[in-house]
Amino acid sequence: MASIKPCNRDILSAIQHKIDHKTKPLGALGGLEEIALQVALIQQTDTPHLTKPSMVVFAADHGIAREGVSAFPQEVTVQMVQNFLHGGAAINVFCKQHDIELHIVDAGVNADLPKYPNLIQKPVGKGTASFLSGKAMSLEACGQALKSGEEVTLKISQSGSNIIGFGEMGIGNTSSASILTSMLCRLPLRDCVGKGTGLNESQWQKKVDVLQEALDFHQLSPESDSIDILTTFGGFEIAMMAGAMMKAAELGMVVLVDGFIATSAFLVAHALQPAILDYAIFCHVSEEPGHKKALDFLKAKPILHLNMRLGEGTGAAVAYPVIQSAVNFLNEMASFEEAGVSEKDEVKPV
Amino acid sequence: MASIKPCNRDILSAIQHKIDHKTKPLGALGGLEEIALQVALIQQTDTPHLTKPSMVVFAADHGIAREGVSAFPQEVTVQMVQNFLHGGAAINVFCKQHDIELHIVDAGVNADLPKYPNLIQKPVGKGTASFLSGKAMSLEACGQALKSGEEVTLKISQSGSNIIGFGEMGIGNTSSASILTSMLCRLPLRDCVGKGTGLNESQWQKKVDVLQEALDFHQLSPESDSIDILTTFGGFEIAMMAGAMMKAAELGMVVLVDGFIATSAFLVAHALQPAILDYAIFCHVSEEPGHKKALDFLKAKPILHLNMRLGEGTGAAVAYPVIQSAVNFLNEMASFEEAGVSEKDEVKPV
Repeated sequence: MASIKPCNRDILSAIQHKIDHKTKPLGALGGLEEIALQVALIQQTDTPHLTKPSMVVFAADHGIAREGVSAFPQEVTVQMVQNFLHGGAAINVFCKQHDIELHIVDAGVNADLPKYPNLIQKPVGKGTASFLSGKAMSLEACGQALKSGEEVTLKISQSGSNIIGFGEMGIGNTSSASILTSMLCRLPLRDCVGKGTGLNESQWQKKVDVLQEALDFHQLSPESDSIDILTTFGGFEIAMMAGAMMKAAELGMVVLVDGFIATSAFLVAHALQPAILDYAIFCHVSEEPGHKKALDFLKAKPILHLNMRLGEGTGAAVAYPVIQSAVNFLNEMASFEEAGVSEKDEVKPV
Repeated sequence: MASIKPCNRDILSAIQHKIDHKTKPLGALGGLEEIALQVALIQQTDTPHLTKPSMVVFAADHGIAREGVSAFPQEVTVQMVQNFLHGGAAINVFCKQHDIELHIVDAGVNADLPKYPNLIQKPVGKGTASFLSGKAMSLEACGQALKSGEEVTLKISQSGSNIIGFGEMGIGNTSSASILTSMLCRLPLRDCVGKGTGLNESQWQKKVDVLQEALDFHQLSPESDSIDILTTFGGFEIAMMAGAMMKAAELGMVVLVDGFIATSAFLVAHALQPAILDYAIFCHVSEEPGHKKALDFLKAKPILHLNMRLGEGTGAAVAYPVIQSAVNFLNEMASFEEAGVSEKDEVKPV
């Protein structure tokens, strides 16, 4: 498994000095300054650059989807994968807008997909088992998913990308994300269950009941091994994403975390390798209630607050130019000295 | 003065239908869907386009800056204008990133500026008078500023731009914005006064005291004529921005509102022409406490929450690609029918 080192902070004060001497009041670029500092620390330079941004959407099916927890039928997973491959989905539009290279990974959808140029085929199976009465996946399958995720990231890194976003598609996967978030953040299950793709009140209650039944059946606790939690309640795309995220951090890439499901994968990665936090930028906060709670648990400040809840990596793709803005101001803005602008301390107000 | 008509809503349901049949759960793009709908209504088409995005930064000096209300000396206004003209400021970086044409307007800085290609010279004077003991500007000067703002917008519109952002530079202008916000939103003054470019606690208290003294001196009320409030407490850049915003809405352009000072200009425009709200996108919420209150008053949902407080139009420029994303999904995403994806209602969950 990947071994992630915290970012070396020796150059922190030099980077902060550069930020603080740009022609603006101290701290006036707010969150952009924090992002600039983080990217500079990840890249260990005060002139960071984002190269060949990439987005990976991991898709898989979920046995739990057959238990009436989703507003959409399971076949939508593969239909949406085909939509990605044909360029018609939201993530295609936003990646095209920002020149982000989009990769689709079959992590285990319930169909045989034909070959496509941007489809990476790493299926662990035809979807997980329902975790209502057994584990979602075997330990072996989980290991295969983590390893496949590492391979996907490594290949993208080798192509010259140093910033990578992660998204997902899988009907039913907010159910996995809800339980993972509940266990890994030690939160009541109900607080982590949302309306997914559009449940009404009674459907939402049914989802809560089904997930509670699964929790009661398995009798795991927040103290349980996080791999055990992942194999029991996870999805192939979630496990593969966790592996891919850890590898990206190990390689010193900037890791863009999308929404609720991506963050649940991040929680698993974070439980295994806490230093991954140094490399992660949380791109938005979803309307799914569990997402805000997971971000709070991680003390993460998401970039966008747009009530999006689509997944696919869309929040990460839409937030990408903000990260680029942060890097750009650090590289391109003049300092007070360069611009001949008086600094605050030179002349005091009357 | 410009005469602004509310957007015709006859095509609203057709646009909403198009949004709702894109391959995503209903409403799953959250705020992006609201922005797409708004731009489509402004342009009266379900295939809106953003053409030649532009940014105008109005700069002017303020007599009140000599009363110890700012952390920076007044000469920083002209120094920063020169920084804009030489390309070294944050707004230059972000406009360059998004191919936004940047115009700098001398609305009344306390200096004689040489000619520059992107400098528009419309000075109303060498800065306003201090409003501690008199009006900031005469009614005639205010009228000139409003008219000059209209002229600036008209020219930019004629060049083919249909989306225009407004920013400002003027040491001392958070003081004007604080009083305008307090009066036009009927809020206690203290709640609208922030630390501007970086006051400490005692300097902040002094700023509150100075502004309260000015309020007591003039004895205007929220019921006073908004032009009277503007001439008394405004700035040349604020008045000119208000005129420019109203003209942009009259011309059917998308109006990008930046931070606290730009929003205070918008409040004046809104008091004069309430229908301007249909055309305005509020790009971020600043760390200045009065800004959030003004946005709440306008029931506005800002795009970015990044604790920025720089002005210059930077929040609008950084938010621009999010607006582009909204327009892009509306034009480019496949519908359920086009993509062959099952809709929620076709197959019910078990």
